[in-house]
Amino acid sequence: MTKPTLAVIGGTGEEGSGLALRWAADGYSVLIGSRSRERAVAAAAELKSMLPPELPARISGDSNAGAAAAADVIVLSVPYSSQTGILEQIRAGCQGKTVVSVVVPLKPPRVSRVWRPQGGSAAEEAQGFLGGEARVVAAFQNISATHLKELDHTVDCDILVTGDDSTAKETAIELARAAGMRGIDAGPLSNSSVSEGLTAVLIGINIRNKVKGSGIRITGV
Amino acid sequence: MTKPTLAVIGGTGEEGSGLALRWAADGYSVLIGSRSRERAVAAAAELKSMLPPELPARISGDSNAGAAAAADVIVLSVPYSSQTGILEQIRAGCQGKTVVSVVVPLKPPRVSRVWRPQGGSAAEEAQGFLGGEARVVAAFQNISATHLKELDHTVDCDILVTGDDSTAKETAIELARAAGMRGIDAGPLSNSSVSEGLTAVLIGINIRNKVKGSGIRITGV
Repeated sequence: MTKPTLAVIGGTGEEGSGLALRWAADGYSVLIGSRSRERAVAAAAELKSMLPPELPARISGDSNAGAAAAADVIVLSVPYSSQTGILEQIRAGCQGKTVVSVVVPLKPPRVSRVWRPQGGSAAEEAQGFLGGEARVVAAFQNISATHLKELDHTVDCDILVTGDDSTAKETAIELARAAGMRGIDAGPLSNSSVSEGLTAVLIGINIRNKVKGSGIRITGV
Repeated sequence: MTKPTLAVIGGTGEEGSGLALRWAADGYSVLIGSRSRERAVAAAAELKSMLPPELPARISGDSNAGAAAAADVIVLSVPYSSQTGILEQIRAGCQGKTVVSVVVPLKPPRVSRVWRPQGGSAAEEAQGFLGGEARVVAAFQNISATHLKELDHTVDCDILVTGDDSTAKETAIELARAAGMRGIDAGPLSNSSVSEGLTAVLIGINIRNKVKGSGIRITGV
């Protein structure tokens, strides 16, 4: 089966670029999207240089709108505060596609306190904004970006995947596997309030325990 | 240090009685509370018979109000739908004490869909009802009751403890240890919306994976 082409919107950020690198290393074609096409191209070149030379490096950069339009699956990895503005740029390109939201709503300065946006969760707000033709799933909220770019580093965290479309959830579970993690179907998109909220809980656990990358594992499955 | 006397309100239920048994086995004095004093006494006698004969069996039964009034720490293990009525019975007995809420708000029949009560969480509603003189913490939401009464069964699940009083959180973390689990400070009581909501996610994971007792572990600490 041909692998879908991925657009990582916000792919110049720490988490987006780490995921992009892992997906490219697994053989996916990845488009890095950024507000600035130049920054996206530079980030793509840098990621390309980090891949083992024997791999075909299919990473390139584009504007957010261009990357979304050219991709089969769109990964949204942007700060919550920028979400609406960026969704406006990519709305057309998301229609008929799976959109994987990696966004975590946090309310500075109290980022270890669970905060829920008006629409229930960032992912539900994205779904509302993009409309029913886009299939939004939430995933990858709970991983630490710290070691993502070390390709042989095992991320000790499961990926809770929520969404209302089961094919879209399967896509996200496959993307978790491709990045070296275990994706778990965690129910409907409305359950994303919990997976998003868990990130604030983990940030607090990091602070209290003086660690950088606490995560979660689902046991008993 | 003398161990506090515990009241387990709803201690005739599966989870409450399982926790009560584990705490009694660790040397705590436990009062089983129930609406019916007779049922509480019978449940206490049954739990007593399950303890190794060499242990001093300090489990007895009482009405909810009587158990709460006589205890140092109150554990609330009741269905969410009964919470307000039972809090009315025990309000006087909770003043000045730590109250550990094990309650999970679920909205049947869709119990695998995260549902958040109006007050944010069951524990926050309990805090609001009991007033500032009671120190409410939320804990033990995510464990399966299935194997609790097998004292040598390792519960493969961490206990997220949320609350606004650090001494009360320490008490709950010690109760987790006494029951053979690891308690983790998960932040303020408002974060209990996530630990309570996780239970609905785990119920869905149980259903989809045909298992009974999925749980969560915090990694990286």
